[in-house]
Amino acid sequence: MKTIRASIIGFGAVGQGVANVILQKSDYLQKVGIDLRVVAIADSRTSVIDGEGVDLSVVLASKKEKKAVGTGKISGIDIIRTVAHELVIETTPTNIVDGGVGLVNMLAAFERGMDVVTSNKGPLALKYGELTEASKRSGSRFKFEATVGGAMPVINLACDTLAGNRILSMEGIFNGTCNYILTRMMEEQAPYEQMLAEAQELGIAEADPSYDVEGIDTASKLVIVANVIFGMNATYRDVTVTGITRITPEALLLAHNNGYAIKLIGEVNDGRINVAPKLVPLGNPLAVGGTLNVFSVQTDISGPITITGRGAGSIETASAILSDIISLYKE
Amino acid sequence: MKTIRASIIGFGAVGQGVANVILQKSDYLQKVGIDLRVVAIADSRTSVIDGEGVDLSVVLASKKEKKAVGTGKISGIDIIRTVAHELVIETTPTNIVDGGVGLVNMLAAFERGMDVVTSNKGPLALKYGELTEASKRSGSRFKFEATVGGAMPVINLACDTLAGNRILSMEGIFNGTCNYILTRMMEEQAPYEQMLAEAQELGIAEADPSYDVEGIDTASKLVIVANVIFGMNATYRDVTVTGITRITPEALLLAHNNGYAIKLIGEVNDGRINVAPKLVPLGNPLAVGGTLNVFSVQTDISGPITITGRGAGSIETASAILSDIISLYKE
Repeated sequence: MKTIRASIIGFGAVGQGVANVILQKSDYLQKVGIDLRVVAIADSRTSVIDGEGVDLSVVLASKKEKKAVGTGKISGIDIIRTVAHELVIETTPTNIVDGGVGLVNMLAAFERGMDVVTSNKGPLALKYGELTEASKRSGSRFKFEATVGGAMPVINLACDTLAGNRILSMEGIFNGTCNYILTRMMEEQAPYEQMLAEAQELGIAEADPSYDVEGIDTASKLVIVANVIFGMNATYRDVTVTGITRITPEALLLAHNNGYAIKLIGEVNDGRINVAPKLVPLGNPLAVGGTLNVFSVQTDISGPITITGRGAGSIETASAILSDIISLYKE
Repeated sequence: MKTIRASIIGFGAVGQGVANVILQKSDYLQKVGIDLRVVAIADSRTSVIDGEGVDLSVVLASKKEKKAVGTGKISGIDIIRTVAHELVIETTPTNIVDGGVGLVNMLAAFERGMDVVTSNKGPLALKYGELTEASKRSGSRFKFEATVGGAMPVINLACDTLAGNRILSMEGIFNGTCNYILTRMMEEQAPYEQMLAEAQELGIAEADPSYDVEGIDTASKLVIVANVIFGMNATYRDVTVTGITRITPEALLLAHNNGYAIKLIGEVNDGRINVAPKLVPLGNPLAVGGTLNVFSVQTDISGPITITGRGAGSIETASAILSDIISLYKE
């Protein structure tokens, strides 16, 4: 049994999801030889620290009732710099402009030789090369399955499970909000604005939906996968992006009657990274509906391999973080 | 760099595929720290042995021209029992009645403490418990991703990549021949017999198609996955099986017009293992066409995860064997 001391930096939906999943899976973690102790948690205003391991149920209840993880005032970055632990679980809100506090947190963790597991896309979509360099320099390990495709194990599938194959190209649907809106526009033959409003009502789209519907979220995820799989050092600004706001129900119907669906597809081919609405044949593994995400790689010897799953959701994202933790420390 | 000495026992399409893939991927194998030397190869009549590593190109040419791997007469089982090596790649033809020579080979390898990687379904669909027990007793490792779903990494996905999740149930299309026939019957509105004949012409169906179309192949694969994932000890005879021979093009069209496809689905739910034609909603990840296979698991925290790929083909199966070898020995 290995004792791993971890911090959770950022305690929004995903951070709380991680705490819940760790509670739920403690028996399983013990079974694979991991005694995981969360010794510090920080949200944006408060923190709690206990070298023996904080009581996650108490912190979850406190967050729910008092909107605070505790009464401490030590910030996330100071926890990373001063509290003795091996693993930083970085789940602060993403910042796609300059990487924000997440980038600072990750670099600080690497400086101390700590491992980082994160769901925070921004820093990776902007500074992939810098981050992986920093982790290598200090011998830290860096896992970020949760940044792409929620519960879909995109990165680990491509890098580990398909180890015998070389990946030639890849494409997929990386944004459940867009997929939901397009699916519903076709089903109801209703315009974009109406189905966006429905998605917002259901909590599937944000009040400001531009990050999703303009394709920026898809571009950020795509860049992370492209960098990992093809050893690129691209940022999301290198991606040619067209969103879904101009698609009409008439176009969707015409496509359908000819045996196609229209989907917002992100693809990497010959070093070019594109996000745009594309025709996909019905019956093709990419033609999944609802909020589903899908990821497909073309391999040199096995042809195409496709994986489909829920691309978002805090508990799904937390499960990807847990899978990364298990892969780092299991016996 | 680790030197791994291997034998290939059985040199039909899959065995030759393995030799080809090892040749093609020798640089990559070196890169991950594996110096893989095939020290012996046996087909059903001849064999070749060289402690320094046989020349795979020569053996492949010999097999092609002379229908024999060499001039030696030492049988596969004697190679396993007497030649010094660490890994047996077992690719003899499958035998679903009693496990045949494959079962004998695997047990002999485990007796000597050797690792086994195989594509041979029969022994696993009949004697899973006995085989895993034997491998544990001697500290051998046993990998068989290639027995299920060709290039689709079904077993490694469920056991490793999704480690943070518990799998509640699973379902899928495990037979490309059936999927092809059903897809074409719908497209052409042609009867079963006609599309079976087309599949036979294209080499997608065997002269005697019963192993595929009666669902026995699906049942065998399903049992292997069920045993691994749920720790069962079932054999393919425990599966309730209905094949596709009674499906009509009219039924397929009626389903289609109501938004469904009919697919031969294998499923494991609450310990029950069934194979039968089922209605699948179009747009559902299971509704893939052509010869594709698909595998879907319902997980406790991530919901459904689905993987799709080519379920058959000697080179695809060989790639799964290679992925298993890499996962066993990479540094």
